[in-house]
Amino acid sequence: MSYLAQSFSVKFDYKIYFTKFLFNIENTTLADFFRERAAEGGQKIYFVIDEGVFIAHPNLIDNIRTYFLVHPTVALLPDFAIVPGGERSKNDLSLFDQLIDATDSYGIDRHSYIAAIGGGAVLDLVGYAAAVAHRGIKHIRIPTTVLSQNDSGIGVKNGINYKGKKNFLGTFAPPAAVFNDEQFLTTLTDRDYRSGISEAIKVALIKDQEFFCWIENHAEALRNRVAEQMNYLIKYCAKLHLAHIGGADPFETGSARPLDFGHWSAHKQEQLSNFGVLHGEAVAMGIALDSTYSFLAGFLTEDKLHRILNVLLQLSFEITDPIMTINDLQSPLLKGLAEFREHLGGRLTITLLTDLGTGKEVHEMSPQLLIKASSYITNFLENSTSLNFNND
Amino acid sequence: MSYLAQSFSVKFDYKIYFTKFLFNIENTTLADFFRERAAEGGQKIYFVIDEGVFIAHPNLIDNIRTYFLVHPTVALLPDFAIVPGGERSKNDLSLFDQLIDATDSYGIDRHSYIAAIGGGAVLDLVGYAAAVAHRGIKHIRIPTTVLSQNDSGIGVKNGINYKGKKNFLGTFAPPAAVFNDEQFLTTLTDRDYRSGISEAIKVALIKDQEFFCWIENHAEALRNRVAEQMNYLIKYCAKLHLAHIGGADPFETGSARPLDFGHWSAHKQEQLSNFGVLHGEAVAMGIALDSTYSFLAGFLTEDKLHRILNVLLQLSFEITDPIMTINDLQSPLLKGLAEFREHLGGRLTITLLTDLGTGKEVHEMSPQLLIKASSYITNFLENSTSLNFNND
Ligand SMILES: NC(=O)c1ccc[n+]([C@@H]2O[C@H](COP(=O)([O-])OP(=O)(O)OC[C@H]3O[C@@H](n4cnc5c(N)ncnc54)[C@H](O)[C@@H]3O)[C@@H](O)[C@H]2O)c1
Ligand SMILES: NC(=O)c1ccc[n+]([C@@H]2O[C@H](COP(=O)([O-])OP(=O)(O)OC[C@H]3O[C@@H](n4cnc5c(N)ncnc54)[C@H](O)[C@@H]3O)[C@@H](O)[C@H]2O)c1
Ligand SMILES: [Zn+2]
Ligand SMILES: [Zn+2]
Repeated sequence: MSYLAQSFSVKFDYKIYFTKFLFNIENTTLADFFRERAAEGGQKIYFVIDEGVFIAHPNLIDNIRTYFLVHPTVALLPDFAIVPGGERSKNDLSLFDQLIDATDSYGIDRHSYIAAIGGGAVLDLVGYAAAVAHRGIKHIRIPTTVLSQNDSGIGVKNGINYKGKKNFLGTFAPPAAVFNDEQFLTTLTDRDYRSGISEAIKVALIKDQEFFCWIENHAEALRNRVAEQMNYLIKYCAKLHLAHIGGADPFETGSARPLDFGHWSAHKQEQLSNFGVLHGEAVAMGIALDSTYSFLAGFLTEDKLHRILNVLLQLSFEITDPIMTINDLQSPLLKGLAEFREHLGGRLTITLLTDLGTGKEVHEMSPQLLIKASSYITNFLENSTSLNFNND
Repeated sequence: MSYLAQSFSVKFDYKIYFTKFLFNIENTTLADFFRERAAEGGQKIYFVIDEGVFIAHPNLIDNIRTYFLVHPTVALLPDFAIVPGGERSKNDLSLFDQLIDATDSYGIDRHSYIAAIGGGAVLDLVGYAAAVAHRGIKHIRIPTTVLSQNDSGIGVKNGINYKGKKNFLGTFAPPAAVFNDEQFLTTLTDRDYRSGISEAIKVALIKDQEFFCWIENHAEALRNRVAEQMNYLIKYCAKLHLAHIGGADPFETGSARPLDFGHWSAHKQEQLSNFGVLHGEAVAMGIALDSTYSFLAGFLTEDKLHRILNVLLQLSFEITDPIMTINDLQSPLLKGLAEFREHLGGRLTITLLTDLGTGKEVHEMSPQLLIKASSYITNFLENSTSLNFNND
């Protein structure tokens, strides 16, 4: 036996731009981006739009057309794809086929762009199609929800569901660029708006005490959709996510995934509720459960746990519900632990908290302690008064 | 407008092992590989086998079972998938679905392995399925043809065809490891055996004069399937390919692809012949065409061109055929130029030769000169005598 060893590194670079009114002709953010990259010429761009965004922003397509007429930096394809918003877009494999057909019939090559405007689900679908067509067409993300602007839309993952299995097909494929336009957020429902905040709480809890305190102090403004505070939250949260992804293991070859704090139960909850509970809502309950477990396991003080539960309540999150309630060892939610292990691959690795801003990895969770944690939360909720809602 | 910049590098490492009788229980190459990586435990392995290999090696599955009984380093899944060999495996999307279903039903997670034993086509199919299932399951390649052992099986690309478009869906995804077992080559047909040699001539011509001379001097032995010379050729060719891939642009973000020397017409020829002409056979004719063009364009001496055409003939390759003949501007083969540009994305970039072992990039080809090149080859063939076949 003899062997040859192959070894190389691939560098990935992209920027996340923060702007307002991206397609206003006076806003040159996008035009500048393409102008800098127009070296070889002939690049096309194909837009895929989330139906929810399309309905809430009826002039969007006209604005895009006008924008590229005024700034002819890249060849805008005359047709646009409108795809259903939310999880449906990831469940319907024919949408994937439709996008692949479009790259074929429009002759979109590896130097051209597929841009997606929408929530995290649509970005995941389009990102996946772009990643595998021609072994990777340049992909531009224009996230339109809080969650996708501060978390899902700025990272390196994409995916679609397969036979009900969440993100069963996908790749790691960094975007060419991300454009966060705060104006899109104004048309979100309160539920969609709020649900993205839980990812900021999550990343604050495992990485950044100061940020957690900031969220505590601005919970009221965030609940009331004050743009200035939301912009701050999104940018800060995006920065923490980016730093983590750019760290040791961007393509997640190990089994540790601290950014999945609170997520083992959230994934299961989404599935058990048939996606009636939003991802961010499920994450809020997942944070409540794993923080409580951290306290009961002796890692976190009760005082700190209460601050976590209170900030969730102040932001109008539910911290538990019937699906999240673990009464006994047969509770369906507990299956989420095994599925999470399989999802990660290898050993079960769960992040718990030892402080506000500090995570700790464990490799098992006691079902008995989870039952206790669940009833602790129910009691806490019963004892919490309206006072909790006005302490900032 | 403000922005955050993301930047990181991902390192990829893998080895190509050269061995004989890989599944002989005395051969510990494979067992050692898994033993070194068994840290977390619980990894499974699922085997997908090329039907052509399965038929030619009827004891293969038994040998694999025995091997992992004796060396229980990874949990062998009891079922094996047998998929049709050759381009059919890449044309039939239901095979892709079948592999995805298998990863789901067998609970193959990101720390488990999907191994493929077969020719380049089967490796491309399985590599693609492994790359997108769970965003990437570890993939082991056991190439069984000359082409896949010296070229396709050792690189970073995978892919399947979509609506007749070659490699329309795929990713860049390095394997976990490659095991080249020379014993598999003994059961190849002469055509399949020989066709992989053209990739070695290709890489020699653009990178390594010494290797080209070596091939010239051993053409007879290679034609007669002498194992020692073939082993040398495969390993040397693999080394040149690896060095290129590991160089400036492993995931081909630019439009230059020197390893695609001779390929613009080969891709078209494969398609026009409905894959009746093998990839390596088409590449041999593509090398003849682009080398002749290099001479007619004034880049390469006629003497060197003749050495190239002669070595192809000595190895029993056809250097032209009716599809490759370009009579006028309407010749279907010429469409291959535009399609190649689209395939690369961006500008057309073609590698020509200035010497044996030295490539040169150009960004256009003259159809008139291609017509001349085509008739030059026809004339050369008419004038070449049997003497050409015995000069080493
Ligand atoms: N790729 C990743 O790393 C990653 C990380 C976390 C979550 N995710 C995925 O993100 C998805 C959730 O994304 P999400 O929370 O952004 O929600 P979503 O994509 O499910 O969208 C929610 C709803 O909001 C609508 N909508 C979107 N933008 C709007 C706007 N500006 N105005 C009005 N309506 C609008 C959509 O049409 C949809 O009905 C899940 O599929 C989850 O798996 C991916
Ligand atoms: N991924 C890449 O970078 C890359 C590069 C070049 C080519 N390719 C692809 O490789 C494919 C061609 O691969 P190939 O030349 O290896 O041929 P192949 O995979 O088409 O196989 C040719 C035939 O040989 C049979 N076979 C394979 N091994 C055998 C053995 N040991 N004994 C008996 N029969 C055997 C197969 O069943 C098949 O019928 C094409 O699809 C091409 O696109 C991929
Ligand atoms: Zn999340
Ligand atoms: Zn080739």
